[in-house]
Amino acid sequence: MEREALRSLLEQVRRGELDAEAALDRLAHLPFVDTPSARVDTHRALRHGLPEVVFGQGKTAEQIAEIAAALRAAGQPVLVTRIDAAAAPALLRALPQGEYDEGGRLFWLGPAEVAVVGKGTIAVVSAGTADLPVAREAIGVARRFGNKVEGLHDVGVAGIHRLLEAAPALRAARVVIAVAGMEGALPSVVGGLVDRPVIAVPTSVGYGASFGGLAALLGMLTSCASNVSVVNIDNGFGAAYVATLVNRL
Amino acid sequence: MEREALRSLLEQVRRGELDAEAALDRLAHLPFVDTPSARVDTHRALRHGLPEVVFGQGKTAEQIAEIAAALRAAGQPVLVTRIDAAAAPALLRALPQGEYDEGGRLFWLGPAEVAVVGKGTIAVVSAGTADLPVAREAIGVARRFGNKVEGLHDVGVAGIHRLLEAAPALRAARVVIAVAGMEGALPSVVGGLVDRPVIAVPTSVGYGASFGGLAALLGMLTSCASNVSVVNIDNGFGAAYVATLVNRL
Amino acid sequence: MEREALRSLLEQVRRGELDAEAALDRLAHLPFVDTPSARVDTHRALRHGLPEVVFGQGKTAEQIAEIAAALRAAGQPVLVTRIDAAAAPALLRALPQGEYDEGGRLFWLGPAEVAVVGKGTIAVVSAGTADLPVAREAIGVARRFGNKVEGLHDVGVAGIHRLLEAAPALRAARVVIAVAGMEGALPSVVGGLVDRPVIAVPTSVGYGASFGGLAALLGMLTSCASNVSVVNIDNGFGAAYVATLVNRL
Amino acid sequence: MEREALRSLLEQVRRGELDAEAALDRLAHLPFVDTPSARVDTHRALRHGLPEVVFGQGKTAEQIAEIAAALRAAGQPVLVTRIDAAAAPALLRALPQGEYDEGGRLFWLGPAEVAVVGKGTIAVVSAGTADLPVAREAIGVARRFGNKVEGLHDVGVAGIHRLLEAAPALRAARVVIAVAGMEGALPSVVGGLVDRPVIAVPTSVGYGASFGGLAALLGMLTSCASNVSVVNIDNGFGAAYVATLVNRL
Amino acid sequence: MEREALRSLLEQVRRGELDAEAALDRLAHLPFVDTPSARVDTHRALRHGLPEVVFGQGKTAEQIAEIAAALRAAGQPVLVTRIDAAAAPALLRALPQGEYDEGGRLFWLGPAEVAVVGKGTIAVVSAGTADLPVAREAIGVARRFGNKVEGLHDVGVAGIHRLLEAAPALRAARVVIAVAGMEGALPSVVGGLVDRPVIAVPTSVGYGASFGGLAALLGMLTSCASNVSVVNIDNGFGAAYVATLVNRL
Amino acid sequence: MEREALRSLLEQVRRGELDAEAALDRLAHLPFVDTPSARVDTHRALRHGLPEVVFGQGKTAEQIAEIAAALRAAGQPVLVTRIDAAAAPALLRALPQGEYDEGGRLFWLGPAEVAVVGKGTIAVVSAGTADLPVAREAIGVARRFGNKVEGLHDVGVAGIHRLLEAAPALRAARVVIAVAGMEGALPSVVGGLVDRPVIAVPTSVGYGASFGGLAALLGMLTSCASNVSVVNIDNGFGAAYVATLVNRL
Amino acid sequence: MEREALRSLLEQVRRGELDAEAALDRLAHLPFVDTPSARVDTHRALRHGLPEVVFGQGKTAEQIAEIAAALRAAGQPVLVTRIDAAAAPALLRALPQGEYDEGGRLFWLGPAEVAVVGKGTIAVVSAGTADLPVAREAIGVARRFGNKVEGLHDVGVAGIHRLLEAAPALRAARVVIAVAGMEGALPSVVGGLVDRPVIAVPTSVGYGASFGGLAALLGMLTSCASNVSVVNIDNGFGAAYVATLVNRL
Amino acid sequence: MEREALRSLLEQVRRGELDAEAALDRLAHLPFVDTPSARVDTHRALRHGLPEVVFGQGKTAEQIAEIAAALRAAGQPVLVTRIDAAAAPALLRALPQGEYDEGGRLFWLGPAEVAVVGKGTIAVVSAGTADLPVAREAIGVARRFGNKVEGLHDVGVAGIHRLLEAAPALRAARVVIAVAGMEGALPSVVGGLVDRPVIAVPTSVGYGASFGGLAALLGMLTSCASNVSVVNIDNGFGAAYVATLVNRL
Repeated sequence: MEREALRSLLEQVRRGELDAEAALDRLAHLPFVDTPSARVDTHRALRHGLPEVVFGQGKTAEQIAEIAAALRAAGQPVLVTRIDAAAAPALLRALPQGEYDEGGRLFWLGPAEVAVVGKGTIAVVSAGTADLPVAREAIGVARRFGNKVEGLHDVGVAGIHRLLEAAPALRAARVVIAVAGMEGALPSVVGGLVDRPVIAVPTSVGYGASFGGLAALLGMLTSCASNVSVVNIDNGFGAAYVATLVNRL
Repeated sequence: MEREALRSLLEQVRRGELDAEAALDRLAHLPFVDTPSARVDTHRALRHGLPEVVFGQGKTAEQIAEIAAALRAAGQPVLVTRIDAAAAPALLRALPQGEYDEGGRLFWLGPAEVAVVGKGTIAVVSAGTADLPVAREAIGVARRFGNKVEGLHDVGVAGIHRLLEAAPALRAARVVIAVAGMEGALPSVVGGLVDRPVIAVPTSVGYGASFGGLAALLGMLTSCASNVSVVNIDNGFGAAYVATLVNRL
Repeated sequence: MEREALRSLLEQVRRGELDAEAALDRLAHLPFVDTPSARVDTHRALRHGLPEVVFGQGKTAEQIAEIAAALRAAGQPVLVTRIDAAAAPALLRALPQGEYDEGGRLFWLGPAEVAVVGKGTIAVVSAGTADLPVAREAIGVARRFGNKVEGLHDVGVAGIHRLLEAAPALRAARVVIAVAGMEGALPSVVGGLVDRPVIAVPTSVGYGASFGGLAALLGMLTSCASNVSVVNIDNGFGAAYVATLVNRL
Repeated sequence: MEREALRSLLEQVRRGELDAEAALDRLAHLPFVDTPSARVDTHRALRHGLPEVVFGQGKTAEQIAEIAAALRAAGQPVLVTRIDAAAAPALLRALPQGEYDEGGRLFWLGPAEVAVVGKGTIAVVSAGTADLPVAREAIGVARRFGNKVEGLHDVGVAGIHRLLEAAPALRAARVVIAVAGMEGALPSVVGGLVDRPVIAVPTSVGYGASFGGLAALLGMLTSCASNVSVVNIDNGFGAAYVATLVNRL
Repeated sequence: MEREALRSLLEQVRRGELDAEAALDRLAHLPFVDTPSARVDTHRALRHGLPEVVFGQGKTAEQIAEIAAALRAAGQPVLVTRIDAAAAPALLRALPQGEYDEGGRLFWLGPAEVAVVGKGTIAVVSAGTADLPVAREAIGVARRFGNKVEGLHDVGVAGIHRLLEAAPALRAARVVIAVAGMEGALPSVVGGLVDRPVIAVPTSVGYGASFGGLAALLGMLTSCASNVSVVNIDNGFGAAYVATLVNRL
Repeated sequence: MEREALRSLLEQVRRGELDAEAALDRLAHLPFVDTPSARVDTHRALRHGLPEVVFGQGKTAEQIAEIAAALRAAGQPVLVTRIDAAAAPALLRALPQGEYDEGGRLFWLGPAEVAVVGKGTIAVVSAGTADLPVAREAIGVARRFGNKVEGLHDVGVAGIHRLLEAAPALRAARVVIAVAGMEGALPSVVGGLVDRPVIAVPTSVGYGASFGGLAALLGMLTSCASNVSVVNIDNGFGAAYVATLVNRL
Repeated sequence: MEREALRSLLEQVRRGELDAEAALDRLAHLPFVDTPSARVDTHRALRHGLPEVVFGQGKTAEQIAEIAAALRAAGQPVLVTRIDAAAAPALLRALPQGEYDEGGRLFWLGPAEVAVVGKGTIAVVSAGTADLPVAREAIGVARRFGNKVEGLHDVGVAGIHRLLEAAPALRAARVVIAVAGMEGALPSVVGGLVDRPVIAVPTSVGYGASFGGLAALLGMLTSCASNVSVVNIDNGFGAAYVATLVNRL
Repeated sequence: MEREALRSLLEQVRRGELDAEAALDRLAHLPFVDTPSARVDTHRALRHGLPEVVFGQGKTAEQIAEIAAALRAAGQPVLVTRIDAAAAPALLRALPQGEYDEGGRLFWLGPAEVAVVGKGTIAVVSAGTADLPVAREAIGVARRFGNKVEGLHDVGVAGIHRLLEAAPALRAARVVIAVAGMEGALPSVVGGLVDRPVIAVPTSVGYGASFGGLAALLGMLTSCASNVSVVNIDNGFGAAYVATLVNRL
């Protein structure tokens, strides 16, 4: 399907000349949908059981809206991560029915309530207030992926008693996401408190010898707790993705 | 319990003056057992449902045997990883009832058959022949932790057809461990083939710009597949540990 | 030839007092042309069989226009790479007969059609949408250097089936350029699919542990495919240059 | 084909009970041959037009001999690179008909003369005497791959006149391999002298700020000559491989 | 001398109530002059035979003017390096008798002609046009420090013949400053051409694997030419300083 | 005092021709004592109130014995750190009255009991068994410097309850030294438990992404606990030195 | 206490409906106070004897004011560090009774005079004028923490006589903070001059090979003076914190 | 001249059939002499005024002896640096008339006294005893290159008074070489004490955060003293080479 064909089909839908069902039929025969900005994989939901997620960083509101329209036309919900603060207002104007989670820099276009399919709870624990955006990305994504999520914030290792108070909530979870910048010690302590897989997310929070998250990343990779695995710096989305797969087992 | 007390108790067991059951009773009241080389945590099996694992690297056969005796006296099986090739013969002489897995550098002192408690299969896929020791460590540990394991070796990404032939076996697994050195691209391709969590293990295999496994590590952390999380370089044990926890869910 | 002399000669050409042929004669005696911003090598086309290429990054529209005028006066086509988005409109106003390729950040002043002198096709394959600017730079440069080019985009290794669909097109090429950021695994898989030289271009696309393209760079240098060589991060131009030389053999 | 079956087949060949042709027939039906140390790809020669090459580093003479026997049984020549000095005598005892190139750390088991199929000459130019092992690896591999090779040694950039004397030989080549440690400047100068692709090989030669070849590697990647692409540190084999593919075009 | 005292003294000079000679007398008794922004060392010229040089980067035009006034009041010439482009106009308005060298980002307040005290010529050779600002800083500083300077630009190693044409000028110098970014190979080649000390200045010019000048820096430190020593990245001033001391011997 | 003079003086002492007191008198007039291997500062004890400490790494038993003799002749106790295991027996043979602490790699030649001059206790807490040599170096040095020391070992952050059990002992200390390899998280947790200065010592214990202690070092420098300062990797001596100065305040 | 409850309580205080004492009572029962931006620990002053310090970097004036109000409502003084220059005016408008220390980027809301509880003087010595902001942060924080502070600026090691002139002041201190960027050599020289603990603060001042403070950081960690410990790059606050704890002993 | 011809010529000289003068004549017509291990440049002495220097590291005694014989046959003195301790005895047996400087790892075959042609003294100042081998290499090379050399050892910056005592000797020199490992601060302080060029040599002495000399290297490159330039880590030879050129001006 050429771009022009797609554009015309979308125009028809926007003008009401083609109803969603009919458009969906036509799109469903395609393995991919090409938009000017990206080739969007509309069959992914079927293949992986998870909606397509758009990485919003570096994309304009127009580009995101275009991709979202293609996905909606294919009957899919849309989740956009890492939305630049500057792009959010225009995006909401373009797609007013969407929900914008400023704290997690997420945009959602889909049913207000997502059915819970995860078998247990995912706990998302974070160290400092500056780690919150990454934690909130993980929380928002995990919720949109059909999980119950328990957020536990501001429980860094230098205030160990607050972390210990959170231990029951951590132990009640089926899988834990631990988010921390600076020295990134949180997953090691959390890993010792629970018998579940801990997915560690280093953040770029810090300065000087944190070297953009390198200190936290190395710390988590060399954790003395054996139940810890690690995703990329600031990759709250990836942690939620892995946790979702684990929580569906 | 002081070292001397422990030493005397072990002497009694060795001389047959104290049977295992009685010794176990006495040890069971202790949270830890102190040997000259290390404080061994005998309650861990109860707390985490997994046996204590001894990191053998840098330890002499004598030190390992001593720790193993303490664990056996506490009625626990013993799993030792990263045994130095030079230490293996002496270790087998000291503990002839143990099993030594040369390929995985593992030593096991416990029941010949471990009951399978993992709910599905763990697939361990590795890229090149030089990655085998790390893959075998993961396989051996996962088996001793009560999992069914499927090993798939020599399926690097530059020979993509062999990897595709392995896809059904990968898809049949509940969780996948992907082991690779050099550029570490295997987890990305595997991650695209399966809907399960993929635990990536970079190895120090390579030379030049591999910088001791750094290339593979960074490649896995920045994987374009979202279902990948990463453990430390050469950490086959850690991958098996996380996979075991996931496989018990 | 002093700057003033050059300036006056260019003035004459602009006012029509000197025709191109005569100006060319005079310039042809010079090994180099000095403009205020750079010494331009007008004999390069003869020596290397390729037009002079101007690296546009950090240059103002005025500086580029000045260099372009000198080259045109010498009868040479002009290719400018890495044009800053801000400089493009002014450059097009200054040289309205030029063509601007926004996607590849290229500017061309020369014949609309370049004669094809390359013996086969150069395939340019790229992984993600964010890698497109670098891929388009490679495509645009290779075309202006007289090659047939086949572009294959959005075929990352985590979606291996799309890459396999592209295999026939890759195998039909005489030389392949593989462009990828993040973990940079694409050249390894492509290298296993073709029997031709693969020129790998790491891109700075990514975040966190990608460290500005370092992850992709190291991954490509340690590729397990033996037919891969590598150019600098984001250096689509260099890849096209090498591929052009190979394609003329 | 199980290991045991392979072992028995090889035994038959060694005892003269099975002639090469018959064994070859049986092996030809297999896509791969499994030896205890590695899965050897016997069809590669057909697929890529190049013999299987064994990376000898870290392998014992026994392991190499075993793989070589499998390849010979499949009617293939055998080329082994990076042979540890300690392994060479035993390898020659095990396979006395082989040739050992000490300077290039290569072992060859095949016809004394390889037919030249490359269309032109590959020039291999190296900077210092300490770079010779890598240069000789490139030369030896390129010859066994059917190329005419011209070696030019000890022509570092600090003695520019010797390099200029080598310019005619460099210009006569169809593709150039430039090998250098320390600051790795040779490919930049060579790249300016020739209109052909230059494959740069950084070596780990140097001390201090050379950081195991990192200085040369970065220098070659940032070369101001546009016709340079780079392979891994000390990867003379890879350079010869790429040059062979280019020379066959 | 307190700041207030200095301020009042400067006020008197500005209002003409105190002539330069008298002010100088009073200042000459102080080892240092404190301005609000910095403690300025007015005796340095006597001690080292070179004027005080102000590092302009990060300083406002006001701060620079204030320091310059203090130095002028002490009878010293003023040389300011690394002036931010934004600060230059205000600085020239504040000190209209000064000279601003835009190419070298230098500001000079002192005699139009500086007596030549260096015994020979300092050659400053640079590789690419982007290296010019650093080369011009070196040239401007060396001239203000009383040297004859010969500038040779755009003579990178990939165009070796232009560099060889420059060889006589380089050999005529008493000390050579070689400025290059990217792979930083220029000092190695220059070092082989001359019998004089070569001071190498890596620049931050480049992208990707140049890592902000690191590639050039490492290349220069590992130069195969023995007569090369190195200063910090972009430190044209430091090179001129060292060259001046050498040229006075 | 020339080496020969020193040698003769030491000979006299060894032969009993000169008693310690007399030799001391003569040495006391010298600011330094030159031995063939090093210039030893005999006045340091007076100036800093601490004995001279010899860094034993890379020194032979003979060199250490020679320096020790010079110090003893000057009436000073001798403390040697980082003694190579191979050098210890010869050192004890040469100086049989010395004490060798194998765990801490320390050698002591002085009074069996050192007077306690520190005002409180220094707690030395370490994470894993592999960190013990560094912890023992800190303990041994601190004791010889006149401190009461409390050692707390094997209390890593992944077993937080054991660390919490150690909290009263940590809080009773006047200053704490925290020793840890791997991710180096111990000082952050300890820092939150005490109101005292915590001196963090990263160790080179670990593998892979620990990069020889870099992970622990960066982690400690970016600690979220504000009462932490850091010394070099494996520098148990330095930590004891700083703690001693603090404990004397 | 929910956010709304806190908001209403603060509203009451602002409107005068609730006096400070009563509000304090209610707040005192909470271990923490939640504001929209952060969970503020109001008991810290009691536990550690030091006021809560807010890290201002990346926070808006509104967020800081909100946190400050919560702390003031809890009867605590407020110290904010690293205030963005852009945020300062709005912060002063919002909290006009506060004091802003522009040089140290600090904001203080509390008693004009803080009682001196430190037993001696803390000397803060810095190398260059560009290191002043970090030195002033250390000075300002140390004063607000109840210490007498002696500031010694512009005493870099290349002007050793000025540093020696400062030696008496350094020796009079109970603990020294040494702040330096570039090569970071100051703590080594200072450490040799005093018998007290020296807390070294590397700064990000410098360019090129300073790599954002890495050069100074590594230099300080490898200092040949044994009485030096190190905090993170630019961490004047941390140095003051440690020095305060030491000065209270 | 082919190797065989050279071999025969050397044989003749050894057997006394050809006297040195005649052999020299024949060799003098060659630009280079090829030995099995290296191409030796016999004209260098004429071109650069300095003898050929052989880098001994990694060379066997036989290889060195062979090169030395070629140089002696050409009438040149021979200086070998970085001789492996293991190679020295065999080298002295092969060339008994040579002198071996163990401290500096140098071997010299030439006149016992070298004429002094340097105009002044070169001061070589080093920080710690472990830096001595590099300092002695610099001293030995500088002497053999015809300089008066003043060695000043064990004058690190943490003992500033000893360094100040050395100031007169440093100021009397025409050029200074400053050798230091660890934090590498010595050149900065020395640079402030003298008005001469200071050539800084970082050494690999240190551990942990010294990272093989990186800390010292970065420190010297970012020195706050402007008269400092830097050579590679441990490159005592290079420093002596540059200092010699400077001292001849």
